[in-house]
Parts: sequence; C-alpha cells; structure tokens
Amino acid sequence: MAASASPPRHDEMTVRLCVDCMGGDHGPSVTLPACQAFLQKHPQAELVLVGTAQALEPARHWERCTLVTASEVVTMDDPVEVALRKKRDSSMRVAIAQVKSEDGQPPAADACVSAGNTGALMAVARYLLKTVEGIDRPAIAAVLPRQGGGYTTVLDLGANVDCTPEHLLQFALMGSALVSAVEGTEEPSVGLLNIGEEVIKGSDTIKRASELLRAAGAAHQINFYGNVEGNDIFKGTTDIVVCDGFVGNVMLKTSEGLASMMGNFLKEEFTRNPLSKLAALMAVPVLKRFKARVDHRRYNGAALLGLRGLVFKSHGSADALAFENALARAYDAASNRLLDRVHERISLSLSGQGAASDS
Amino acid sequence: MAASASPPRHDEMTVRLCVDCMGGDHGPSVTLPACQAFLQKHPQAELVLVGTAQALEPARHWERCTLVTASEVVTMDDPVEVALRKKRDSSMRVAIAQVKSEDGQPPAADACVSAGNTGALMAVARYLLKTVEGIDRPAIAAVLPRQGGGYTTVLDLGANVDCTPEHLLQFALMGSALVSAVEGTEEPSVGLLNIGEEVIKGSDTIKRASELLRAAGAAHQINFYGNVEGNDIFKGTTDIVVCDGFVGNVMLKTSEGLASMMGNFLKEEFTRNPLSKLAALMAVPVLKRFKARVDHRRYNGAALLGLRGLVFKSHGSADALAFENALARAYDAASNRLLDRVHERISLSLSGQGAASDS
Repeated sequence: MAASASPPRHDEMTVRLCVDCMGGDHGPSVTLPACQAFLQKHPQAELVLVGTAQALEPARHWERCTLVTASEVVTMDDPVEVALRKKRDSSMRVAIAQVKSEDGQPPAADACVSAGNTGALMAVARYLLKTVEGIDRPAIAAVLPRQGGGYTTVLDLGANVDCTPEHLLQFALMGSALVSAVEGTEEPSVGLLNIGEEVIKGSDTIKRASELLRAAGAAHQINFYGNVEGNDIFKGTTDIVVCDGFVGNVMLKTSEGLASMMGNFLKEEFTRNPLSKLAALMAVPVLKRFKARVDHRRYNGAALLGLRGLVFKSHGSADALAFENALARAYDAASNRLLDRVHERISLSLSGQGAASDS
Repeated sequence: MAASASPPRHDEMTVRLCVDCMGGDHGPSVTLPACQAFLQKHPQAELVLVGTAQALEPARHWERCTLVTASEVVTMDDPVEVALRKKRDSSMRVAIAQVKSEDGQPPAADACVSAGNTGALMAVARYLLKTVEGIDRPAIAAVLPRQGGGYTTVLDLGANVDCTPEHLLQFALMGSALVSAVEGTEEPSVGLLNIGEEVIKGSDTIKRASELLRAAGAAHQINFYGNVEGNDIFKGTTDIVVCDGFVGNVMLKTSEGLASMMGNFLKEEFTRNPLSKLAALMAVPVLKRFKARVDHRRYNGAALLGLRGLVFKSHGSADALAFENALARAYDAASNRLLDRVHERISLSLSGQGAASDS
C-alpha cells in the first residue's frame, strides 16, 4: 500500500495532491467529481486518490491520477482512538502517509486533503508527520470573507483549547507563512484577538501574548498590528487574526449559525406572499450575487499548520464545489512552498530568540 | 442631589426607572426622546431623569418624571478610575445610587438604565451596590435573535475574563432568573458553550462546569440541557447560553461584525446597477421586514446581573428606538421582580449545596 505505489514526479512544476476520497459526509460521491473539476482547472496538478478499490473504480482511467487503495474508512463519528490505533489501513491514514518525507526523500505528494473528522485527522497527521521543530502544537487555520473583499485568516480554530502566549506567537508565525504563500501578501498583518472596552481587557495570557507578538514585530519576524476585536475579522482590519482554539471554534461556529439564520430570514421574507415572491423573481440576479459573496463553500479548506507535511481539512458536509475549493487552497499552498515558509519563519524566530537571550 | 430628591412612590404597581440621560455617544439628544416614547407606551411607568440642569431643561414639565441633576458626565473614553474616584457627581453614579436600598428602605427607583461606557458602569455599579450574597462576580447578559423567533440570552459578555466552574454555575442561575422574569419562561433551558467535534472537547474548566451544571439540573435549580456550540445560539437550542466573558464578548462582536458585513453586501448588490436598483424598489417591503428581524436595536439592553440593584446597559451608539428598547427591558425585569428572583435562585442553590455537604 501507500507511498511506494506512487510513481516518480514528472517535473519540478508539477504539484501533486493526495486526496482522501472516503472522508466527509458524502465520501466519493462528492470527492471524485470535485477532483475531476479540479484537474480540469489545474493542468499542472496531479492527484493521488486514496480509497477503497470499489469507490475508486470510476477513476480508474483518469489522466494525471494515481490510485492508492485502502481497506478501511474512518467515519465521521469514529473516536480519535479508533482512527489512531484500530483502523491502520484507513484512507485517511494512507493519504496522510503520502506527504510524509522518509529518509530525506521527497514525499510522494506535496499536500493531502481530507474531509474526514477533524479530531481524527489532526491526531493521525500529528502521529505520522510530527510537528516542525520549534512548534509545540499544530493549529487549524481557515479564511473568512471580509468587507472590502478578500479574506481574513484565523487560527487556531479548535486544535488547542488552552494556549500559552508562546503558542499564540507560534500561531502568528505560521499564519504569516500561510498567508504569504496562499494570498501572496509578503508581510501580512497580524492581530491578536482580544476584548475591547469591557471591564477587564484580556486575560494575563493575552496580555503576555501581546508583549511577545510586539517583540516579534519589532524583530521583523511578523507584521504585528496589535489587538483586534471580534468585529475586526469581518472588517478586515488585519490579514491574520490569532486566538486560542476554544475562542476560534466558538467564533467560527457562531458565524456559521448567524449567516445561516440571516440567509433563512431573507428566504422566508422573499417567499412570504405572492408580492414578495414576485420581488424575489425580479431580484434573482442580485440575490445570486449576494449568496455567492457569503457562500461558505468559497472559503472551504482549512490548513493544519505546524506539521512536517501539508494537510488540508475540508468541511465534512462539503459538496463538490466546496471540496474543489479545498483542493485549490492546498494546491496554492503547496506550489508556493508553504512548508518551507513555515520552517523559515520558525527558524528565524528561534534564532532571534537565541540572539536575544545571548545578548 | 440623588436619592433624597425623589418623591414617594405612588403605588405598588408603578415601576420607576432611573435614566442616566448623559450616557452614550449621543447623550440627551437620544435619551430624552426615547424616554418620552417609552412613557407613552408604559402608563404605569415613572422615570427619574438624571443629567446636567441644562440637558434636562426640555423635560422640566414632563409628566411622571422627576429630574435629578448631576454636575459631571462620564465620557465614553473615561477610564474606570476616573468614573470611580474622580467624577463623584456624575450622572452615571447618581443614577445608579437611585437603585441602592439604604437602611432597609426601598430604593428610589426599581432599575437604572445607562448607555455609558461598560467598564465604568460595571465598576461604579459594583462599588455602590455590591454583589448579591453567593455571587462572586456580576455578569453582563444580553439577548440575540434566533431562527424560530424569540431570543437566546447569553452571559457573560465581557465582565469576567477568567471564570471558574463556580462562576459559570452562578451565571446559569442568574440567567435563569433573568429569562423567567423578562421572557416569562418559568424553567428556561441552559446550555454551556463548548466546542464540538474538534480535537479536544473543552478545557478542564468547561468539563468541571459541565458537571456542576448537571448537578444543579438534577437538584432542579436550573433546567440544564448540556453542552452547546456557537451555532446553537442562533438555532435557539436553549433559552440561555453560558460562557466566560472573553468568549462571550468575542462571540458578540463577531456577530455584530458579520451581520453588518452581510447587510452591506446586500445593499451593495441591490445598488450595483439600474436593474438591481429596480429590483430593490420592488423588494422594499421584503427588505424592510428582513432588516427589522436582524435589527440589533431590537435586542438592545443588557442586564448587569448579580448586583443588589437592577442596572441595564444600553449600547453606546444606541439611537432613540434602541434606547427605548433598553428602557422596556429594564421595565419588564423590574415589574417581574428580577432582583427577588436572582436572590431566590441563589439562596436555593446555596442551601442545596449546604444540604449536599451536610449529608
């Protein structure tokens, strides 16, 4: 199984993604059409498709695709333990193994994408790939839309509940590497999520993190803006917003819930009576454009940062369009050397700390 | 100044609110019209208006109003220290003093409403009124709209950054008292805000809080539903959602930011070209109804819970409609004996704990 099955790379320009075709609520019925659409739009991409032999059958003769079979599937409800210790030939695990570099050899694939359950994915990825030197904990980073166009990258979104100031600094460094790779912004600005005018401005952890980030900014390791508040994420005050995984996860889920409620309210009002239905008919192109702008499928594809290999996580409920976007994000990250950029940022920071403590 | 200036109460049914007319971004230009509108709709209400003599001039002959002058104003930027130690004759402080019960006498007013800065308001209220026995820290509670209609009450929204499990239990008890008073739900359901499927499900604090809340539920002190996630707030899974003030504040600000961005997107799309403007014209009634449903002014009026007196906080940027809603919420809370209900819930819980530790 696994890595040995992949053929040698065609050339330097090719980006090869490995896809866990079984993950997510819909499995191959979503992932395979997404892969097909992705390949059409990315002529320099190659895919390694991982799944059961039966599931991969439709892709048997696809161009630029290598099939790797796995006998097991991690379900969305499987506990981390099961994914980690029981299902050792799962499509998720086999897919992650493709981005592992062994004995100094380049890995079989440049990045791995899965819509499988987050807990399992993070645990297996961490176990197989290990963290980058200087990173204590991997983080989950994703993008949210913002007022003036473009995206705000937020991390961590749920991998780490209790974070030290040092962890938050590491998130800032990794987030900067991600945004410079994927969005092409060389010195993306970083905000530390805090609370504003209210009684007590931030916990001790946040206060100390703020000092650390300020020092890293002064040392040109990151472009630190300062503290930001919840509404700054959608205002786009900074390119990156850093927070602990508990806060980040609540923020993300709350946003999903609110956007969904507002969408439903709009729908309800436009279908309330014959007159409003007529108005809806008139407004079809407007509502379509609005929907496209707030469509969470456009923002699909979270990066698991801090591992010695690129892993991207798609929303479990993703449809083909959403999954294709996750593939595109992984492709952009891999072709812009995200892994090297994370290494470089972390090394720079570590050597800076060394220099600082030497002096 | 202050309490002595207020006349004796007319009768038991009258609810008297005290209003800091100088607070907020707009001061009396917003608060006075709001008071007028409120009085028209609440024939059993009386108001104690607090402000500078000049600011209160227009209200000199209003019915059911008592004017109390204060020589100073706490600005929106004043640090807590200034509000607490320097401006001792501020409208905010004089207004809060009206709800303080001295020597067993009933207070001059049943509840106080201010749009002044949150930090100052909480600090002064805490200093003047003290906390209810059994409550370590006051909390800020507000409502958010939800899918099926009605509201979800969330606390704390920023008064307490680091919370112990015991604090979260106290928030659950106070939130239950608030919702039973204001919404009329006798046994409102309580959810503990947590993160879901992700790697680590909640911190140790949340896990222990979950146990405490479950025990309080078993003892019929609250109606505990279990853990909820960010999206449950807008789904309306529970009547009340409890969280620490850092998470609550980020959640609130994020929601405000997202709602504002979505509103702007909608506006931009409906004004993009002549055709979309025509569609907007057709859709005016629909868009009005939609706007009304997500209008944050409807949800204005946060309760400062756990103090020996009722204090309500209006958004600083509130217009007259929003401020009137804050007055209406304070009125509902006062007329439904919120203060007594908080006392009762807390005493029941304390005696339950006593009984439990006795046995």
